[in-house]
Amino acid sequence: MRDVAVIGVGMIPFGRRDEDTLMDMLAYASLKALDDAGLGDKSVDAVYVGNMGGGVIQHQTAIASSLVDRLSLLPAAAETVENGPASGGSAVKAGLLAVASGYYDTVLVVGGEKMREVTGWRATDFVATLTHPQVEYPYGITLPGMAGMFTRLYMEKYGVTREALVSVAIKNQEMGGLNPYAHVEMAITKEGIFDDPAAIVNNPVAADPLHLYDACPVSDGAAAIVLCPLEMLKSPAKPPVIIAGFGQATDTQTLQEREDPTDLKAVTLAAQQAFERARLKPSDIHVAELHDAFTILEIAESEHVGFFKKGEGAKAALAGKTRLGGQIPINVSGGLKARGHPVGATGVAQVVDIVWQLRHELPKNRQVKNAQNGLTVNFGGFGNNVLAFVLRRVEK
Amino acid sequence: MRDVAVIGVGMIPFGRRDEDTLMDMLAYASLKALDDAGLGDKSVDAVYVGNMGGGVIQHQTAIASSLVDRLSLLPAAAETVENGPASGGSAVKAGLLAVASGYYDTVLVVGGEKMREVTGWRATDFVATLTHPQVEYPYGITLPGMAGMFTRLYMEKYGVTREALVSVAIKNQEMGGLNPYAHVEMAITKEGIFDDPAAIVNNPVAADPLHLYDACPVSDGAAAIVLCPLEMLKSPAKPPVIIAGFGQATDTQTLQEREDPTDLKAVTLAAQQAFERARLKPSDIHVAELHDAFTILEIAESEHVGFFKKGEGAKAALAGKTRLGGQIPINVSGGLKARGHPVGATGVAQVVDIVWQLRHELPKNRQVKNAQNGLTVNFGGFGNNVLAFVLRRVEK
Repeated sequence: MRDVAVIGVGMIPFGRRDEDTLMDMLAYASLKALDDAGLGDKSVDAVYVGNMGGGVIQHQTAIASSLVDRLSLLPAAAETVENGPASGGSAVKAGLLAVASGYYDTVLVVGGEKMREVTGWRATDFVATLTHPQVEYPYGITLPGMAGMFTRLYMEKYGVTREALVSVAIKNQEMGGLNPYAHVEMAITKEGIFDDPAAIVNNPVAADPLHLYDACPVSDGAAAIVLCPLEMLKSPAKPPVIIAGFGQATDTQTLQEREDPTDLKAVTLAAQQAFERARLKPSDIHVAELHDAFTILEIAESEHVGFFKKGEGAKAALAGKTRLGGQIPINVSGGLKARGHPVGATGVAQVVDIVWQLRHELPKNRQVKNAQNGLTVNFGGFGNNVLAFVLRRVEK
Repeated sequence: MRDVAVIGVGMIPFGRRDEDTLMDMLAYASLKALDDAGLGDKSVDAVYVGNMGGGVIQHQTAIASSLVDRLSLLPAAAETVENGPASGGSAVKAGLLAVASGYYDTVLVVGGEKMREVTGWRATDFVATLTHPQVEYPYGITLPGMAGMFTRLYMEKYGVTREALVSVAIKNQEMGGLNPYAHVEMAITKEGIFDDPAAIVNNPVAADPLHLYDACPVSDGAAAIVLCPLEMLKSPAKPPVIIAGFGQATDTQTLQEREDPTDLKAVTLAAQQAFERARLKPSDIHVAELHDAFTILEIAESEHVGFFKKGEGAKAALAGKTRLGGQIPINVSGGLKARGHPVGATGVAQVVDIVWQLRHELPKNRQVKNAQNGLTVNFGGFGNNVLAFVLRRVEK
């Protein structure tokens, strides 16, 4: 099994991109990553696109072949990889395995989604296409609905407070304000949420006990990476970062079938596999991008991956341990909460952000000093298909 | 790179399966392949689902995770792979690379589609989601429309006659009648098509010069295979078949951008790669499953993969060289024309049929005697993303 390096990364600003088609966004992010890798466009053997909604939203399929043509990368092989909100992570995995297998040397992985083409209930309905078609979807359960129930259980079992949830939103929106790629750049304060009467309007209940600011926005966006075997890097222009570990696990599709619905088994398993393969442990990680589609998820995942004991994540968040400069900075990018969550893009964007961290390329107010190892967690469904990647800076 | 063996195969009868959901079909085919492989259900590390229309037709995404739950294969990794009508081939490729990479030992690949949930123009519109969203789709071009124009060009350039096209339909529908998994079991005759006045009604022009019987039907169906490293097979119950070669190539999305629209470059390239990797040549192949979504494609592909010279495919078909017992039997299963073309299933079904041939498991009237090497071609878009696999029987 060959070590696989990330030799190029690129992202376009997430948000509302009415002027771009899905294909435009995929192409822009790809060109940035290819440029970052210093590659001419004849150098890619295969392309993987992470996308969930091309068929449902854009009424468009086979977008990977189309992208290869658009980028003049013919006759490179191409596939779309779909795995709900973990489609981006699954595309990164596809690229990793493709290079590791020896079949391909240079692989472009790009994730993207144009979600704002559908708004309001249609956006929620689009994401709900991942729910169970017989026992969930017809009854109207949505992802925010599941997250609400999960949050209530978590609050009751572990004494998590709304203050803890809000602290995650405040931290991530603050970081979003510093990130030029973030969708949400608006800072929020504890006082604004708890003491300002306007919060009833500005931050209404979305799915009790979750409020609007506990959820990620509906965003357009794309991100891309270029992979190649580490052994092929002779004198890299930038510090090489390898995918040192990868893990993935599935769980029951419906929450009610789980022995303990607050136990995100697939997160635990995916992270364990990734750490094992990387021969690292949670305490070796210097920076992490977790899948905070809802504030509770950042807290829950920070426990399940092993940064904190079960039930300690909320306290850690309140104590600032997950802030830049803290014990383990989480979602310095702003996370899904603020960078945004164009579903197919997210898993790739997380890797891009960690690569920037490990190359030490970010401005001071966002850079984790001397970061050598990073972790990403991309959470599909409601935790029924989770991917984790451990990235490591290597010296060449 | 490890040699990868196909240790289990399964298929369900293609056709109209109103009583089954897409998930039912995927599950049935998977269980058959797992059973054929002699595997208990805890033995699968990863699952790849080839599917094109889950989002568009069933309004359902993340079906791979759902399938893993349905089959009690938790916590196996799972992804859906989409590549238009080559989604099945792309899922087989994903499984091949996953095992070759060393990340996974036992991988289930299943392709399926429930297309008859949409009928008439909606079925055609679904397939047209793979056309170019700016320069093709809005103008109403469909896949049959493209195939019609391609056929006209091919007839003019190479003197292909309607008799040659019809001979492919007759052969494949005859073979479909012998295949218990085939959708179309009705035999047709040259006289019935050319001399019977009823043909005007029974076999109307679909996209001039193509008639109804030149096109594959709209089918429901699923097929599955189980892969593992050849080295892990100690005393296999059935003759092992390996994926000896794999090739894939993309081409421009639109036909009009190709220097010569009759030149299916991606077919040539994919087949060349597959032969090269397998260290075999076209004349070493004993049986082939080609992507005859339209009769012209079987003829054109038989030339592009190297069985016949350019312009000789039609003559070969008319001379019976592609029939069982001929020089190179093509689509002994009935092909897409008669077995049917549930798009996500096709690329997997082709591999299943070749494995049966190479194991010598078929009844006499469908078995190619002593077949050792087989070829499959799965054709995505209008030849803009093509996958080819060379399968080889090995003795253990």
